[in-house]
Amino acid sequence: MISINPFNPPSRLLMGPGPSDVPPSVLLSMARPVLGHLDPVFVGMMEELKGMLREVYQTANDMTFPVSGTGSAGMEFCLVNLIEPGDEVIIGVNGVFGTRMADVASRCGAKVIKVESPWGTIITPEQIAQALVGRNPKLVAVVHAETSTGALTPVEEISRLSREAGALFVLDAVTSLAGCPVRIDAWGVDAVYSGTQKCLSCPPGLSPVSMSARAVETAARRKSKVQSWYLDVNLLAAYWGQDRVYHHTAPISMNYALHEALRLVLAEGLESRWRRHEQNHGMLKRALEAMGLSFAAQPGHQLWQLNAISVPEGIEESVVRRRLLLEDGIEIGAGLGPLKGKIWRVGLMGATSTGANVRRFVAAFGRILKDCGNRCDVAAALKECA
Amino acid sequence: MISINPFNPPSRLLMGPGPSDVPPSVLLSMARPVLGHLDPVFVGMMEELKGMLREVYQTANDMTFPVSGTGSAGMEFCLVNLIEPGDEVIIGVNGVFGTRMADVASRCGAKVIKVESPWGTIITPEQIAQALVGRNPKLVAVVHAETSTGALTPVEEISRLSREAGALFVLDAVTSLAGCPVRIDAWGVDAVYSGTQKCLSCPPGLSPVSMSARAVETAARRKSKVQSWYLDVNLLAAYWGQDRVYHHTAPISMNYALHEALRLVLAEGLESRWRRHEQNHGMLKRALEAMGLSFAAQPGHQLWQLNAISVPEGIEESVVRRRLLLEDGIEIGAGLGPLKGKIWRVGLMGATSTGANVRRFVAAFGRILKDCGNRCDVAAALKECA
Repeated sequence: MISINPFNPPSRLLMGPGPSDVPPSVLLSMARPVLGHLDPVFVGMMEELKGMLREVYQTANDMTFPVSGTGSAGMEFCLVNLIEPGDEVIIGVNGVFGTRMADVASRCGAKVIKVESPWGTIITPEQIAQALVGRNPKLVAVVHAETSTGALTPVEEISRLSREAGALFVLDAVTSLAGCPVRIDAWGVDAVYSGTQKCLSCPPGLSPVSMSARAVETAARRKSKVQSWYLDVNLLAAYWGQDRVYHHTAPISMNYALHEALRLVLAEGLESRWRRHEQNHGMLKRALEAMGLSFAAQPGHQLWQLNAISVPEGIEESVVRRRLLLEDGIEIGAGLGPLKGKIWRVGLMGATSTGANVRRFVAAFGRILKDCGNRCDVAAALKECA
Repeated sequence: MISINPFNPPSRLLMGPGPSDVPPSVLLSMARPVLGHLDPVFVGMMEELKGMLREVYQTANDMTFPVSGTGSAGMEFCLVNLIEPGDEVIIGVNGVFGTRMADVASRCGAKVIKVESPWGTIITPEQIAQALVGRNPKLVAVVHAETSTGALTPVEEISRLSREAGALFVLDAVTSLAGCPVRIDAWGVDAVYSGTQKCLSCPPGLSPVSMSARAVETAARRKSKVQSWYLDVNLLAAYWGQDRVYHHTAPISMNYALHEALRLVLAEGLESRWRRHEQNHGMLKRALEAMGLSFAAQPGHQLWQLNAISVPEGIEESVVRRRLLLEDGIEIGAGLGPLKGKIWRVGLMGATSTGANVRRFVAAFGRILKDCGNRCDVAAALKECA
């Protein structure tokens, strides 16, 4: 046995696709004493947490709580509960996470109709309307903010079309929640999942979800058992509800962190938080464009919280990314799938989204790009974020 | 919006069925800065963590890592990867967790053969041998330490029988790991799962698992896709292996905690840790028996880490439990299923298992029992744990 030292992580500026920077009070909340998951004090805290989640999701849905897994577990939660073998489902696919939803749905035995758009572009209501012609699907699912491409699909109209066709509407709000408007009730969303490590600025480990009454009813009236015991909403409803019927053991410390992170979100105010994300994205965009760089996602639909930047000719993207991490302690993300090697993904999520971080990033990024032979104008860029 | 205050949990002595007390250095590890899950420094930490898990599990299995969910997610991980629809499986059922395994297996489409024993007793090799006659099951699964009853089933012989019959052997080590001997390779276990919040004394949120090469191969050669995308070992192998192929975002802070918890386990030494659990159980048992109380699980097979105590005639168990929590800050557990109202479950797991905690519990428990009209001899009990 080699003796292992305590782990002392270096301090990083987290500007990748998540996790984002976590505020000190959220980190410290996890160092508080652990309670039992059935302790009345813990149960009281969870009621507050669920109430705050409803505010952040802008919903009155009773069934709003954090799934005890990461965002992908939240995706699986929504799909396994609503899909029965043989069901037809329509899924918008314009990046990694739409592709993943289609995979998960097919593992539920669904007949999956993919509505595809090129990576970096959005899914349009017209595409969904066309897919709905002559079909009677169980649900329609799209990704709100595609973390893999930086594109934001407007979903209100898609939701309306889906419901008019008698389908449930499922939304991936992993990267959008708390970084730009997400209005579950106003938009008529039936099932939504998110992650803690994006614009909520909480460590990864939980997936806040919400389900409308008609989604909950759909799950309750299934002919077949939900294929996942761990994610069965019928069992989770009794655990997170008034009865506290033992199901699994909730991740206590992670829930402390989410409680504190939600408190900070609501103290700032949703509208102010969205505006902050919009403003810092604008600053970064002006600076990078002044540097001669361009944004990869469809104009007019670029995310505030996740900026996909095209890698300029002659630059090896991984070299720049690695140098940023090692020389400046700044993490940014690489492209995935067809965008591998072609984009960088720069996150301005939650606590990471500040003017100071934009300036720090632009200065470091510009220096390294120049050093790699790119003729960008760093001074002009810094002027844009002065 | 009602303004929500920061959450300040009271300090409890966690003597229930889990979570157990968490050492300060484990709590503080979670307050350290969050790294990206693909950061080379995080990847290096995870390699150490996987190495330590192999030591604790006493295995050389390459596929040894923490599933990003609680113990029940680990159970589902083992079963969804190994079972295909129509497979026959044999499951030992002598408490809540065997019952749960049978439920999960049936949701995987298995034909489940239950081998049942009364709650509080063990599953014997003879029962398994009998169930194997004329059958060719895909796997045999049993619970090592039944947290719901306090009984420890010896599994070495059951494992041998299972493998001789060509079946994989699956073990629930949620409550046993690091509290009593668990020897994955020596016993020939093919798939095992545990939880962090029992004898590892880490907060709940991860499920350490290990799979033998033949179990991994079984999953790789499946005809059908694993029904859970989140728990698909074929995808997780690429994420936790050398390639680091993006799958989900690992719960960073929880993994810091597990790293520190495993470090403390190995610094103490497994043998010493097992002995400590054995000794403090012995002390508690002598004290409670001196008080006139009795243990509910089968003699000779009582767990060191989880003590099932029969509720004496005339005592309302929930009153005692509630008073212990509110007056003395001590959490103990209730009985479940057929044992509801009939037993208390007193955990002496990990950091909770100390002589000082046994004395504190015995004094408080005795005082409340007397107060409720029981004629127990508290002085005699305290003499046993002097």
